[in-house]
Amino acid sequence: MTTSTALLLADLTGVAVFAASGASAAVAKRLDLFGVAFVGFVAALGGGIFRDLVIDEVPPLAFADWRYAATAAVTALAVFWLHPQLARLRTTVLVLDAAGLALFTVTGTLKALDARVPAVGACLIGMLTAIGGGLARDLLTAEIPVVLRREIYAVAALTGSIVVVLLYVVGRTGPAPLTAAAVLVFGLRLVALRRRWSAPVATLRPPRIGGVDPRTDREW
Amino acid sequence: MTTSTALLLADLTGVAVFAASGASAAVAKRLDLFGVAFVGFVAALGGGIFRDLVIDEVPPLAFADWRYAATAAVTALAVFWLHPQLARLRTTVLVLDAAGLALFTVTGTLKALDARVPAVGACLIGMLTAIGGGLARDLLTAEIPVVLRREIYAVAALTGSIVVVLLYVVGRTGPAPLTAAAVLVFGLRLVALRRRWSAPVATLRPPRIGGVDPRTDREW
Amino acid sequence: MTTSTALLLADLTGVAVFAASGASAAVAKRLDLFGVAFVGFVAALGGGIFRDLVIDEVPPLAFADWRYAATAAVTALAVFWLHPQLARLRTTVLVLDAAGLALFTVTGTLKALDARVPAVGACLIGMLTAIGGGLARDLLTAEIPVVLRREIYAVAALTGSIVVVLLYVVGRTGPAPLTAAAVLVFGLRLVALRRRWSAPVATLRPPRIGGVDPRTDREW
Repeated sequence: MTTSTALLLADLTGVAVFAASGASAAVAKRLDLFGVAFVGFVAALGGGIFRDLVIDEVPPLAFADWRYAATAAVTALAVFWLHPQLARLRTTVLVLDAAGLALFTVTGTLKALDARVPAVGACLIGMLTAIGGGLARDLLTAEIPVVLRREIYAVAALTGSIVVVLLYVVGRTGPAPLTAAAVLVFGLRLVALRRRWSAPVATLRPPRIGGVDPRTDREW
Repeated sequence: MTTSTALLLADLTGVAVFAASGASAAVAKRLDLFGVAFVGFVAALGGGIFRDLVIDEVPPLAFADWRYAATAAVTALAVFWLHPQLARLRTTVLVLDAAGLALFTVTGTLKALDARVPAVGACLIGMLTAIGGGLARDLLTAEIPVVLRREIYAVAALTGSIVVVLLYVVGRTGPAPLTAAAVLVFGLRLVALRRRWSAPVATLRPPRIGGVDPRTDREW
Repeated sequence: MTTSTALLLADLTGVAVFAASGASAAVAKRLDLFGVAFVGFVAALGGGIFRDLVIDEVPPLAFADWRYAATAAVTALAVFWLHPQLARLRTTVLVLDAAGLALFTVTGTLKALDARVPAVGACLIGMLTAIGGGLARDLLTAEIPVVLRREIYAVAALTGSIVVVLLYVVGRTGPAPLTAAAVLVFGLRLVALRRRWSAPVATLRPPRIGGVDPRTDREW
């Protein structure tokens, strides 16, 4: 198996995992067969479409290579029919989701660097590639994006993308260092899940006299 | 009347119809005059803007040709002032909406093919052009997109875009076959409306012992 | 200080102000530290990313120049830690927000014109640059975009972008006329705030006999 075949397989695994996550959210929201397929497609490919638009790789891979859309569609349909069984595989799915996060972080950051995006921008694009699909999934199902409420998800991706940029700067972008970066993201996410790490939330102490309650102040 | 004039008129008809649909949703949500115009603009032109971004036709037609924005704005403002009367024209509007869906499917798929997007991607882009405005309209008005809950809407568009791709492959993209494809989408949508066709929804049987209720499991 | 330094400083001021507005909304929604930073980033840079995509300036400035992301991140984190104090600065923040609106309107419209977008499209892009971040902020926090319910916000931006296009047509794009255009947007917004100007909302008089209640009619 060549490196590029390995990368493609890894990429499609990430697509399948995120499609399953989107389809599962859509089933829970009582969307119909098409809705489940569509949310699965967006969750799997939304981050990559955004990445390709900002680095001017058009048409985005999701439209240029049929295997991406096919993988997303087949997975989403499988979830539609099999979801009661899948609910029992919750741990498996969380592990696969962490793997998808790790993978999209590394490939997204690399593609941005190859498109000559500067370092800080490439970190952001790598992270957005990894979390973008989940964001779009939650917007479509009318939820406040869950990624915004669980810090260690996106922060794991951001950490990984910073590592990839550093590896790129020192010219170490062979399979071994990149795999190590992916394993780092994967591990961070799993440890965060197991230890229930979470980020601080700001204290809301509305100033009662002469002030404005920030909970209801929608003015700015 | 030349073919390109006919195509432009058809395109602007689609824009007007979708602008009316967006403006109507905005009126129902009690948005103000600007909000109604804005949601109308997004519903009419959002799908096309997305299409033009992914096929690298920049600036998108919605910004490059003033007649598109003007049509959307005038229609949305007309709905703002006339909407009680329009409510009585519900059947007319549903028929026009089906016509808009048909039209945007055909033109969106063709533009993607002309931009050298491969077959599967062109089908997806054609469908997204047709349903994208409605999706954006529902996101702006904080609804789960209605297109995700009524299968025969997007599926009619997808069927039409597949037909257009097949016609393109066999080199039959004259006015007659393309019109036939549009009529197919239009007919599918109308029949689905009249017969109340709908797509299956997955059964939710939460495994009660040792499992996770998929309705409330937001973890993946 | 050269003109381009002045422009950059003005641009970064706008970024900081909008980041504060996004971070503030995220704090009110009980998002965590990352969520606050992310919504701040999107509110500050979302409009500009959209602008750069439609005028084909890729990668967008938000990714190409690290100072933009850094300004947004630092401001959002400051709001996270300081927000109870900031609530007392409400008037200051509203004035700064109006300044950000004015600035992004002028720079967004100019960039669209420089990218050879025609007049009507440039007006729309200028306005969308100014209001886009706020729109995205509200979508991420699951609100109907507030800009759609307060006409004089977006309309001030639209007025300013029309003035910039007119100045461009007559060849008067020196610092003085552009500053005047920004001051116009700024003034319009402040006067609208002070006088509580608002736009008309359509009357909802559901036809009771033989009609459809437009408040609940989700069909089109």
